[in-house]
Amino acid sequence: MRITAIYESVESIASDIQNAYINFSKMTCSVVAVVTDQIVDGKQVVGYGFNSNGRYNASGILKDRLIPRLLEADPSHLVGDDGYLDPHKAWDTMMTNEKPGGHGERSVAVGVLDMALWDARAKMQSIPLYQLLADRANREPDSKVWVYAAGGYYYPGKDIAGLQDEFRHYLDLGYTVCKMKIGASDLSSDCDRIEAALKIVGEGNLCVDANGRFDLETTLSYAAALKQYHLFWYEEAGDPLDFEIQAALSDAYDLPTATGENLFSHQDARNLLRYGGMRPDLDYLQFDCALSYGLVEYYRTLDILHEYGWSPRRVVPHGGHQMSLHIVAGLGLGGNESYPGVFQPFGGFSDELDVEQSFVNLPSAPGLGLENKANFRAMLVEAFGNQITI
Amino acid sequence: MRITAIYESVESIASDIQNAYINFSKMTCSVVAVVTDQIVDGKQVVGYGFNSNGRYNASGILKDRLIPRLLEADPSHLVGDDGYLDPHKAWDTMMTNEKPGGHGERSVAVGVLDMALWDARAKMQSIPLYQLLADRANREPDSKVWVYAAGGYYYPGKDIAGLQDEFRHYLDLGYTVCKMKIGASDLSSDCDRIEAALKIVGEGNLCVDANGRFDLETTLSYAAALKQYHLFWYEEAGDPLDFEIQAALSDAYDLPTATGENLFSHQDARNLLRYGGMRPDLDYLQFDCALSYGLVEYYRTLDILHEYGWSPRRVVPHGGHQMSLHIVAGLGLGGNESYPGVFQPFGGFSDELDVEQSFVNLPSAPGLGLENKANFRAMLVEAFGNQITI
Repeated sequence: MRITAIYESVESIASDIQNAYINFSKMTCSVVAVVTDQIVDGKQVVGYGFNSNGRYNASGILKDRLIPRLLEADPSHLVGDDGYLDPHKAWDTMMTNEKPGGHGERSVAVGVLDMALWDARAKMQSIPLYQLLADRANREPDSKVWVYAAGGYYYPGKDIAGLQDEFRHYLDLGYTVCKMKIGASDLSSDCDRIEAALKIVGEGNLCVDANGRFDLETTLSYAAALKQYHLFWYEEAGDPLDFEIQAALSDAYDLPTATGENLFSHQDARNLLRYGGMRPDLDYLQFDCALSYGLVEYYRTLDILHEYGWSPRRVVPHGGHQMSLHIVAGLGLGGNESYPGVFQPFGGFSDELDVEQSFVNLPSAPGLGLENKANFRAMLVEAFGNQITI
Repeated sequence: MRITAIYESVESIASDIQNAYINFSKMTCSVVAVVTDQIVDGKQVVGYGFNSNGRYNASGILKDRLIPRLLEADPSHLVGDDGYLDPHKAWDTMMTNEKPGGHGERSVAVGVLDMALWDARAKMQSIPLYQLLADRANREPDSKVWVYAAGGYYYPGKDIAGLQDEFRHYLDLGYTVCKMKIGASDLSSDCDRIEAALKIVGEGNLCVDANGRFDLETTLSYAAALKQYHLFWYEEAGDPLDFEIQAALSDAYDLPTATGENLFSHQDARNLLRYGGMRPDLDYLQFDCALSYGLVEYYRTLDILHEYGWSPRRVVPHGGHQMSLHIVAGLGLGGNESYPGVFQPFGGFSDELDVEQSFVNLPSAPGLGLENKANFRAMLVEAFGNQITI
């Protein structure tokens, strides 16, 4: 097994949405195609990967460091004892001569390639990735995955009626739980928005997300006001690395919280569990493999969860992409974020999948099945069609 | 005041040295020139910046995100009330639409530009940067700065006599305290190397650095063995984000430790102080502005040190570069790392400076004085000589 070429492209995922922290008007994304010399069912095995939204493309790190390391490696260093491409070994190769700490951007770049490597690996075995992961874990994959509709962004000129229309649309699509942004306006107008949203989704079905904007005082004043709404969860109140804020929130708020999308290594995740005061019977963890060194690192993070007494069912990854969908079903996590219609063509699932009662079924194509999403396939053809047959 | 252009180049700082974690055979560095429309003493003000060693160039992030944001900004958003270029305002501009958390690589890119912006700012006032910083802090700058010679790397084929020769050379250059790497061989051979080094530098004058390689058990077994040597400090035993290892080391080892070079934000630094069990009367902190969002962020980190009861004199930045030299003298930190002859032309100080009894004097040129280091100046001319007069 040899990797014969790796192609890389930067794509726009710009939109006019805005959370409490940033707008997405110039958001970009890296996409890679990892080409192998393996032929399965008459077709050359190519793995595809991309990074999750909210961070920018990692093109510089991919081109300068990670892709050359993979291409220059002795091919035997990328293959496991079973003769297949081994993403764990590829991970060690990619991280050669990288210092510890500083987990950002590089973690995105590794995540992009890790996704493509797992896609290729599962295609070599002609099975969906979730099946491969379940087999390795000696379990049956979940037959469907709980998903919730993330949206409720601040758009220019969007009023409360617009928010309600958006959530009505998500219910029509089959979702029951929806998430909205808070923290870009004041508490009083956010409460108005929340009350309007609850009229559509119903009590117990609304998540709110402050995107790490709040200081301790604001975290707690929102917590006091939010209690009455019995939210599904209150997400990322304070800075992702200010574990004291998270711990204070746990003390003050006896309903579910969620965080973790901006922690990009097992070391950072471990610090959240050590110091953040989160409750394994109540709270949710949202680490996103496609921002945090990929599935190889995610296994380490899941080991740490186990060590600290957390069930994988408490993990609902950020990002709304198909890589997490496979991990959730294959390893038995709690569910997956979904951004209906946003961050296209990277967000969302294969075209043949349906959401019913907030559960989505699973693709049957080998690998990730990314090529079975028409707009993703069209992007691949435009980006790499001159080099490879898609 | 307008920034009229920003030029960026990637330079090699490759060498055949090796620590316990990485080798430096492909190490690179970003360099920028920030060109302004200001003329001082008949010369156009240009600020220069680069990143510190150990992390790679940040070219992708510079070109894709940070440089466009600075060039597209309304010039008034980069100028302070005093009419001068304001690096704090420029920092906010650079970090627009960047999510919280994930402090790596981006922190390097901001550090590169921050250095150039401070260089330009001090040149506009025709004073050395340390004088500008001291003025802003209402203090007199230190007239000299304590420095130590960092080296003692594992080279291919280097034996104990080679290590001793290297340290003899540092003593000849005027240093009294020297640092060597440990952790790439076993404890017994590291002890042999340490004993050989002590014969040259003398008890109390040797630092050792494990570069974050050790797990808890190895950290403590080294600690037990190192006690007898009365080292100047025992640096970065465990992973930089594993604060439990650092705390366990503090409990087990009653001599000075040092860490922090791989923490790249004030939030990460705060977590070290909160959870790492470090002792303000004994230990050293090594945050490096040129890897961690520059001086603007460093001010925030110093505020946190104050809040947690730490004197700035306990801070001895990593990196051996001239930006930290100015910060140390201007703000009264404890000292600065120095890599005699390594990481050229970025390491080291202006050619006119001398080290005596491990103290270095300060440059008198406006700004950072980088152009007064002949090999740095030659690199600038090669990188940017076609665009600007250096």
